[in-house]
Amino acid sequence: MSGESEFIDWVRRQQSASPFVLLPSGDDLAALHWPNNELLLIGADQVLDGVHFDSAIHAPRFIGRKAMNRNLSDCAAMACLPAAAVATVALPRGTQLEYVQELYRGLREAADPFDCPIVGGDTGSWDGKLVVTVTILGRAAGIKPISRAGARAGDAIYVSGRLGGSILGRHLTSPPRIHLARELAATGHITAMIDLSDGLSRDLRHICEQSGAGAIVDAAAVPIHDDAGELNRRDARPPLHHALHDGEDYELLFAWRSDAANNPPKDSATRIGTITADPAIWLNHGDKREPLQALGWEHKL
Amino acid sequence: MSGESEFIDWVRRQQSASPFVLLPSGDDLAALHWPNNELLLIGADQVLDGVHFDSAIHAPRFIGRKAMNRNLSDCAAMACLPAAAVATVALPRGTQLEYVQELYRGLREAADPFDCPIVGGDTGSWDGKLVVTVTILGRAAGIKPISRAGARAGDAIYVSGRLGGSILGRHLTSPPRIHLARELAATGHITAMIDLSDGLSRDLRHICEQSGAGAIVDAAAVPIHDDAGELNRRDARPPLHHALHDGEDYELLFAWRSDAANNPPKDSATRIGTITADPAIWLNHGDKREPLQALGWEHKL
Repeated sequence: MSGESEFIDWVRRQQSASPFVLLPSGDDLAALHWPNNELLLIGADQVLDGVHFDSAIHAPRFIGRKAMNRNLSDCAAMACLPAAAVATVALPRGTQLEYVQELYRGLREAADPFDCPIVGGDTGSWDGKLVVTVTILGRAAGIKPISRAGARAGDAIYVSGRLGGSILGRHLTSPPRIHLARELAATGHITAMIDLSDGLSRDLRHICEQSGAGAIVDAAAVPIHDDAGELNRRDARPPLHHALHDGEDYELLFAWRSDAANNPPKDSATRIGTITADPAIWLNHGDKREPLQALGWEHKL
Repeated sequence: MSGESEFIDWVRRQQSASPFVLLPSGDDLAALHWPNNELLLIGADQVLDGVHFDSAIHAPRFIGRKAMNRNLSDCAAMACLPAAAVATVALPRGTQLEYVQELYRGLREAADPFDCPIVGGDTGSWDGKLVVTVTILGRAAGIKPISRAGARAGDAIYVSGRLGGSILGRHLTSPPRIHLARELAATGHITAMIDLSDGLSRDLRHICEQSGAGAIVDAAAVPIHDDAGELNRRDARPPLHHALHDGEDYELLFAWRSDAANNPPKDSATRIGTITADPAIWLNHGDKREPLQALGWEHKL
């Protein structure tokens, strides 16, 4: 492969049609029609070789899926619909065209189910490791974005799915909970929401800090994934520890209004605790309680 | 520094007010009001240590400025106004808080003159080198975006500023030509435009290929920067060679309608050639001509 031109030409031919896209990638910028009076949501997330994936083990298609899924999961956290994405890739020198194409196919595989076109980006080679960065645009589409800051004392705390042990593989492929998030948010009963990327203990802290509140979590209520049990057999850490702290579950954590007429649909989420006025965060084991430390994922600078 | 939380808190306090920003960074996504019927332009560009800058030599403030300037220059190329940006940073493990803050100040220094708020992003540390990725949102704001694809035979080819030798320092600091681009585009006489990042020889090829046209460039007319002369004294390559191929000038290259009633203002740009129907690209030296090879910047995959 002589350079990046061939890849850029290939990408240009891959672009799916979208009513939003006036001018697709291949120019200096892509141009989109934006619906009238539509709120625009934007964020970016990168995946780094050796931190979020291991290029020696993980196929490029899965790396691409993860890079896109993380951003789509942010859309779920805000209850918005993905509208478009741009992706940049820093490639180790000597990377083959087929490898980059597989990365791109992974990005597309994750984005296509949500009709989210990839409308641009940048490719560069360097004497470094693989970096994939995705920026996502979302639109509110009739549902007010849910921030992390609205939880109030008495609100019930819910989590979707089962948690822990995502490192065994789910961190690459977990489907973003966009449809569920919008269904729940449309009720008007959700006061704060976040997606579980850093881990329940840390992400709950984000909600509490930004809402000026605290929480009590019932240890027995936390839904534990089978993968947490599998990890327990390897590292002897309790499955609950994995469920509370592992991170990258890409499930929804949300507060549900205390005065709501009904609960979330039973198969959609599990109640794990209650928001409190006191800013401390506690983990209850029956009659005993301990502080719930935020042991989840934090990049060390 | 214990982790990235401190940096994230600091960034949150830095955000400038903008009438667009409903919900600033610090949540899963930022939320923006988007003006009615306003075209949205979007693109992303990354700078990689050892390729676009050298962290052993260049101060973080300049690296930040370059990362933002490259994206603002894409706005100039499309004649749109920057509206908001998001930035992600991959940091070598052990990077100090002060270093990241300086990077961020550099991003801001470049964006502030255009009232372009930085509304989100992502920070991670890894066993790798520094990567800074910026995604830019632009709005047409009353001027139709100028693509690369509209040049027609007979159009005059113009370039702003003087070219060559940007590696001596201008590649980090060249101000993006946004105001000039909008002033020129408002005349309705520009048929195609690009910013000079890959080098005149390669960027002119982008315009010709996407317009289905060719070009003749008059070697004697190409405006050469003093830095190209300075480089010539070091590497003995002709200053013209540097002006044609160095890249990262971040000036405007554009085609001006052949039937336009007037020319661009004399101090704004220099005419260097003519678009042709024949798809070849020639460099004229008086009566002689040679093919203008695209020797500019291409990342090797």
